[in-house]
Amino acid sequence: MNTPAGQPPRIYTAALVIIGDEILSGRTQDANLAYLAKWLNVQGIRLRHVRVVPDVEAEIVSAVNACRTAHDYVFTTGGIGPTHDDITIDSIAAAFGVPVVVHPRAEALLRAYYGDKLNEARLRMARVPDGADLVENELSAAPGVRIGNVFIMAGIPSVMRAMLAALDGKLEGGLPVLSRTVAAHIAESRVAQLLESVEKTHAGVQVGSYPFWKDGQTGANFVIRSTDAHVMNAAAEAILAGIAELGATPVDGEL
Amino acid sequence: MNTPAGQPPRIYTAALVIIGDEILSGRTQDANLAYLAKWLNVQGIRLRHVRVVPDVEAEIVSAVNACRTAHDYVFTTGGIGPTHDDITIDSIAAAFGVPVVVHPRAEALLRAYYGDKLNEARLRMARVPDGADLVENELSAAPGVRIGNVFIMAGIPSVMRAMLAALDGKLEGGLPVLSRTVAAHIAESRVAQLLESVEKTHAGVQVGSYPFWKDGQTGANFVIRSTDAHVMNAAAEAILAGIAELGATPVDGEL
Repeated sequence: MNTPAGQPPRIYTAALVIIGDEILSGRTQDANLAYLAKWLNVQGIRLRHVRVVPDVEAEIVSAVNACRTAHDYVFTTGGIGPTHDDITIDSIAAAFGVPVVVHPRAEALLRAYYGDKLNEARLRMARVPDGADLVENELSAAPGVRIGNVFIMAGIPSVMRAMLAALDGKLEGGLPVLSRTVAAHIAESRVAQLLESVEKTHAGVQVGSYPFWKDGQTGANFVIRSTDAHVMNAAAEAILAGIAELGATPVDGEL
Repeated sequence: MNTPAGQPPRIYTAALVIIGDEILSGRTQDANLAYLAKWLNVQGIRLRHVRVVPDVEAEIVSAVNACRTAHDYVFTTGGIGPTHDDITIDSIAAAFGVPVVVHPRAEALLRAYYGDKLNEARLRMARVPDGADLVENELSAAPGVRIGNVFIMAGIPSVMRAMLAALDGKLEGGLPVLSRTVAAHIAESRVAQLLESVEKTHAGVQVGSYPFWKDGQTGANFVIRSTDAHVMNAAAEAILAGIAELGATPVDGEL
């Protein structure tokens, strides 16, 4: 995050590829996207693109290759267990054009954990694309895998989070995005012009408007995002003042 | 769903493009993917691909154009409200290379609902890509929009569901995918070979394995999917029998 004076800070971006028929069938609700997004933000990296693909090699290859050239980092979740539908490692090896090999350290980890019970299916979890490193973690003997800028993670949320914890502070990033929320019981359409004007007059600020209908009242939360706390707060104050001018009661926080 | 005798039934596929910075920042948990997936399945259409993109026109255009050529149907959610960050209509018009026009029927619907309160921001919700049709719904005066094979839906889950309800039974589809779940308190790795073999010997069946750790016990659910109830049930029985042979107690249902 070294930025020569006068140049805008570099923005680091990431993509997520969620792999699994169970997500696309609606059977399982993804629980990793939002967690990864917030974790990345703390690292100074913005989650910018997500794809969900089925357990089909060609579709995994296509998604991973599109994402790894367009973004600084790619994370995948799912498909790294011991069963026949776990094809993520083979697919990402294909995406990189390298063979799959057994990683000695991964095999040692599995052997230490399972002992005599290390069967052929479990040994599958020691397979990695040639040239990959491990992302060891506190929770599972089976490690995550890094090859190039691609991080191959578990789909089970607790394991995925343990793998991210192992990467905490280790990825090069830029400035984290700060956010502040203000709100009012007011129709979105009444503040539309105000929001647009505040965004235009505060460089580097994004304003999102999120309407709701709760307890019989309409309203909206307005989320102001920026890497610069000063500009973010100036924009928030301008929205609060503008809401008051429109005759509604501004709320400094979320409704 | 007319299928000449002897030919495999045509498979209809759909993609979903989720539009919104609030999903990518982790602020909002998507609640539409799983619902759409299940609804599509009832229509005989499979959700096959999902992308999440930010509120940036070029990224919306790119995702919609990639998806509408690769799939029978595309659904988008988000970005069709009255504020400046609602750019979905303009972006999809750009994807189709057509101008944005005010749809007279949409304007009439909004006028009937808002009366004197129909301001400029709300009138934005009557704008559609030229050539589009409306998807009127029971819940919101602002309609969904259809252009070509692309359905532009609200991001708010209740409104999105009302828009889907309006499309119930109206899209051409094939055979719905049936599913049956069996389970056991058994390590995934012990059934890996069994699952692979059952999938191979039952044409048109997919078997997914979903491990869990609950109340101090490991186990897994095995989801068998097929458009053919007979083959699906034969595969389920084979897995149940195989689990018993391995010395575990098979469960005909989900754990």
